[in-house]
Amino acid sequence: MLNPADAAFLDRLRAILPEGTLRTPESRHLEEPRGRWHGIAGAVACPATTGEVATIVRAAAEARVGIVPLGGGTGLVGGQVMPDGPLPLILSLERMTRIREVLPRENVLIAEAGAILADIQAAAEGVNRLFPLALASDGSCRIGGNLAANAGGVNVLRYGNARDLCLGLEAVLPDGSIWHGLRRLRKDNTGYDLRNLLIGSEGTLGIITAATLRLFPRPAGQGTALFVVPSPSAALDLLALTQDHLPGLVSAFELIARQGLEFLSETMPQVRHPLADPPDWMVLIDLGLPTGLDPAEALEALFVAGAEAGLVTDGVIAQNEAQRHDFWTLRESLPEANRHIGAVSSHDISLPLSEIPAFIDRAGPALARLGEWRINCFGHLGDGNLHYNVFPARGQSRADHEGARDAIKTCVHDLVHEMGGSVSAEHGIGRLKVKDLETYGDPAKLAAMRAIKDALDPLGIMNPGAVLRQAK
Amino acid sequence: MLNPADAAFLDRLRAILPEGTLRTPESRHLEEPRGRWHGIAGAVACPATTGEVATIVRAAAEARVGIVPLGGGTGLVGGQVMPDGPLPLILSLERMTRIREVLPRENVLIAEAGAILADIQAAAEGVNRLFPLALASDGSCRIGGNLAANAGGVNVLRYGNARDLCLGLEAVLPDGSIWHGLRRLRKDNTGYDLRNLLIGSEGTLGIITAATLRLFPRPAGQGTALFVVPSPSAALDLLALTQDHLPGLVSAFELIARQGLEFLSETMPQVRHPLADPPDWMVLIDLGLPTGLDPAEALEALFVAGAEAGLVTDGVIAQNEAQRHDFWTLRESLPEANRHIGAVSSHDISLPLSEIPAFIDRAGPALARLGEWRINCFGHLGDGNLHYNVFPARGQSRADHEGARDAIKTCVHDLVHEMGGSVSAEHGIGRLKVKDLETYGDPAKLAAMRAIKDALDPLGIMNPGAVLRQAK
Repeated sequence: MLNPADAAFLDRLRAILPEGTLRTPESRHLEEPRGRWHGIAGAVACPATTGEVATIVRAAAEARVGIVPLGGGTGLVGGQVMPDGPLPLILSLERMTRIREVLPRENVLIAEAGAILADIQAAAEGVNRLFPLALASDGSCRIGGNLAANAGGVNVLRYGNARDLCLGLEAVLPDGSIWHGLRRLRKDNTGYDLRNLLIGSEGTLGIITAATLRLFPRPAGQGTALFVVPSPSAALDLLALTQDHLPGLVSAFELIARQGLEFLSETMPQVRHPLADPPDWMVLIDLGLPTGLDPAEALEALFVAGAEAGLVTDGVIAQNEAQRHDFWTLRESLPEANRHIGAVSSHDISLPLSEIPAFIDRAGPALARLGEWRINCFGHLGDGNLHYNVFPARGQSRADHEGARDAIKTCVHDLVHEMGGSVSAEHGIGRLKVKDLETYGDPAKLAAMRAIKDALDPLGIMNPGAVLRQAK
Repeated sequence: MLNPADAAFLDRLRAILPEGTLRTPESRHLEEPRGRWHGIAGAVACPATTGEVATIVRAAAEARVGIVPLGGGTGLVGGQVMPDGPLPLILSLERMTRIREVLPRENVLIAEAGAILADIQAAAEGVNRLFPLALASDGSCRIGGNLAANAGGVNVLRYGNARDLCLGLEAVLPDGSIWHGLRRLRKDNTGYDLRNLLIGSEGTLGIITAATLRLFPRPAGQGTALFVVPSPSAALDLLALTQDHLPGLVSAFELIARQGLEFLSETMPQVRHPLADPPDWMVLIDLGLPTGLDPAEALEALFVAGAEAGLVTDGVIAQNEAQRHDFWTLRESLPEANRHIGAVSSHDISLPLSEIPAFIDRAGPALARLGEWRINCFGHLGDGNLHYNVFPARGQSRADHEGARDAIKTCVHDLVHEMGGSVSAEHGIGRLKVKDLETYGDPAKLAAMRAIKDALDPLGIMNPGAVLRQAK
């Protein structure tokens, strides 16, 4: 059982840290975007150096006080707020924002965990390089949190998840030791993959303090199109066709449903719709091409090939950067429109690519047995990652259906699980999906996870209750 | 302390396995390519199913008998042979060679651990796809071993290491439980990354029995060139230039030194040298391009740009598939020529890319203090991975210098470590580099590795003595 971060503990901590490191929590330290949890804390520690992080973790371990690591606080599964239990200490990386090194010659950048994602993207751009991690929360999420949660986003198809963009980590482990693992190596087979173990562990195995990140050359030309497709199955075949035409050059392949466009018209009429009539299904295709290949020409050739194969029925190709921006604005406004409508239940799921059409076919009728809903199914089709969100019928509100949320979630997750999918594609487990993990997780994997947690954090002080239920 | 796989244990095991599963070890089960170790074993078990693997592991756990997992036996660091200690059981995956599924629509293939790498490559080619893992031992290594060792090879620059090519695993954990993790998902953030923990753990945390592998579209055109560069530093700048010209399309970028060409002329005169005079340094560049970009034209443009920048002084571009094959034969014959000459000490190292020129500048003089050597420094420059091999002076043999090997190795590894590099880039730790890992590994990481090993394999039965020293 953990001890609270009480006055005596905080006094001891204050005495061994620089003045101003220990602070009174502000509301931003205790809230999360969906407003489902409100965090508690004895104090928030804002260390300025890795050494100070280690001092804090050692003190918490000695006193057996829980630590909740905090990045930008943009996570959607409650990994960043502990709502009950013995008062924890929040450890915010907000003062560790330095970009330590930019090495364009080797396509590497080293940033502290508190660096804002947009600042890292800008630093890369400043040396004519690309850091491809791109999320809606670019401007406020922090790289340590992105890595702890293994963030996804719109460029995973081409560049991979956050874990694929990281070459090395510096981290403080639960005993307060510092792992100096800021390697700049593309190949390093010296022992177990501690880097990937910490990435995606959501602060339950240690605190990432800095990371070596991969940069990429910037494509010479970028092109974007919206293609109308007759069905999700056609969209999938079009994805394969696109990749066959342009292996390794497709940056994003996003599915957009009519329902999403209707929500946009209803709640955000200022967003431009490049296609006059909202189609049932369309895809946004984004290419990054080398010198010698013209993006518009490549997209026209793809349109012709897709139309000949019966996979595309209409479309628009961005003719300039302004249009490209419009297409992306449309795509990126979908989540905000969703928030205006108010989902009863939203799901961040992934499926084996070829199961997606069957999932969409089956999920609608299964949910119809629970009531009348509007469904907005959109997302990163190229990654098999759908945001499958269920809304009340027109004229009703989410408040009318609070009681149905669990049944809807179970219906969707059961089907996803049956079809070999994941109930958390890119958002993680946090506190929201601890029970889902227990329900759907492989028992041997769960046992291994518990053994690893107990081995690395025997006192259970790291982000208590996230990912794994807190041992009593 | 482990117990030997003695007659009583083997009798019990025989009784619970299908007839013919337990066999007498043949020499191929006890040897490794470099002849530095000879393995011991009570028997070799050749299970045909994952269930049989689990039965064997459970029995070994009950009796506390060590298990040495065996794939194709091609590893270069002795991970596959246990030379002393209580007689282990060898568990060979040689009968589990099935390719269970090929799913071209989603670019996925599922293979059992004993499948030969070349057979997987061929199965991918059969559906017009590419499985890009490519090693000298293609024809005999097995995918389970490739994953257990996180194999590298010539296409890492573009497609990543073995770990980057794997979406899911089925594995038997040290308690005999089966992890059913054959996911076909591109995104799955449900808990700790057990997949990457097992990959690269060299059989010390469990036995991989099957894997879901990523396939890729085949490039429309491939092109290969040999460019003469004035120095390793110029080679590095040329790498950056090549990636800027053709982002994501460079499949290989290999460094070749004059010494390697001289060894080839001396020991394998039948191998063609496309350049009349052996240059001090050259690079082999391999491109895989989409329709619309001509490989020869792209390489010519690169040559012009490289020459203008003073990075290329001469070169040949393959004009047809036969020439392309010749260029690659030259590259791939270098290790065999090395074996004919006989290295005193060879090193599989990696460095931060921008440190490579300085490393090459410093390593030669440092080694010269230990004697007179011929050095062949070649390898996967694009990955920062050098095979830095030290040979006796002309007229002498490795036998004349057996006593110098440790000093040479220490000299090279100390320098690599000092410069932020790795003493095992792609071959792993096995039994050869256990002491190196202890010497150069980060203490916090080593402690975490030991804790993980003890948590998942508390009896220490999995590949005893590999990666980590066997606990007494």
